[in-house]
Amino acid sequence: MIKELHFRTPSRAVLHDITSQVQAAIREVKIESGLCNLYVPHTTAGLTINENYDPSVCQDILQRLEALVPMNGHYSHSEGNADAHVKASLMGHTATLMIEKGQLVLGTWQGVFLAEFDGPRSRRVLVKITATP
Amino acid sequence: MIKELHFRTPSRAVLHDITSQVQAAIREVKIESGLCNLYVPHTTAGLTINENYDPSVCQDILQRLEALVPMNGHYSHSEGNADAHVKASLMGHTATLMIEKGQLVLGTWQGVFLAEFDGPRSRRVLVKITATP
Amino acid sequence: MIKELHFRTPSRAVLHDITSQVQAAIREVKIESGLCNLYVPHTTAGLTINENYDPSVCQDILQRLEALVPMNGHYSHSEGNADAHVKASLMGHTATLMIEKGQLVLGTWQGVFLAEFDGPRSRRVLVKITATP
Repeated sequence: MIKELHFRTPSRAVLHDITSQVQAAIREVKIESGLCNLYVPHTTAGLTINENYDPSVCQDILQRLEALVPMNGHYSHSEGNADAHVKASLMGHTATLMIEKGQLVLGTWQGVFLAEFDGPRSRRVLVKITATP
Repeated sequence: MIKELHFRTPSRAVLHDITSQVQAAIREVKIESGLCNLYVPHTTAGLTINENYDPSVCQDILQRLEALVPMNGHYSHSEGNADAHVKASLMGHTATLMIEKGQLVLGTWQGVFLAEFDGPRSRRVLVKITATP
Repeated sequence: MIKELHFRTPSRAVLHDITSQVQAAIREVKIESGLCNLYVPHTTAGLTINENYDPSVCQDILQRLEALVPMNGHYSHSEGNADAHVKASLMGHTATLMIEKGQLVLGTWQGVFLAEFDGPRSRRVLVKITATP
């Protein structure tokens, strides 16, 4: 079964912390041990895992991506969001996380982020949880 | 079981749309719900998910990657394809997609692409499909 | 069950080949066919798959990442490792590999690398192996 998480991103480019919603989806299914697949069904947003303690880390990731792939660069795609497509592919759209003791396994400083590059928008993240022995 | 998909890429750098071949591999196994793992066993090609409606999006991704990692930059690797190795690592080699109602779950505008950076070549993409409850 | 692999990275930035340790973890569980999920629980290190034959390929990847995301760039995060966070997100933190005949399935020239960007450090890579029919 696939669960859909819904988010409203607040600005054009933001790393939106979705860790607590993913954790809640895992608690609902009440499994001990397993895998948690995440999928972003959008072409101008992606997924990344990074620090969710000091918010300046997310700012640095966004600013560096903007320096490398500027919104106002030269692109063929005419919708004004070509940079967002490139940035989304750099971050990726799929992640497989581990579940142990009914909890998402994350490093001490890690959070899971929806990487929005063409907001503000309504976005979905698909979650599929599979129990393992 | 692992299924191998075979492709002949037409040029040095191309995002080659493999969505229909992945869908066909899923239809063959006749499962309702599951996961579809993709793996690129090459070091100068990768995988990405992005828009397959307006082809200018793929052109923009390739052109921006070339601006960031130029073929004729300064590299140590002497085969003339060092840029292709870097680009492949930026795109990644593995993806886990979801299957529901016997179909690959993709966003409206999404396709799955073999990201070729050192073609034209014969390339393989490995597909492993697992049923889930 | 999750197995933890432990590594001591030798320098600030290095692609540390972990292929043989991942293979050893697979041999321990004695399965024929399955999936091997890898996860890096750190925010300044990631995972990548690339050539482990000519070491100049890894040097080129690291040097190009440094050109794109310089250690001494302008960042908000004050710990001096903001570049390492950005580079880790570009490489990614999760990978799903395939197992067949009790072995990791890799291309001829491929290895699996812990991508260290803020070493030297003690690092962990989590491995979860699941048998498939």
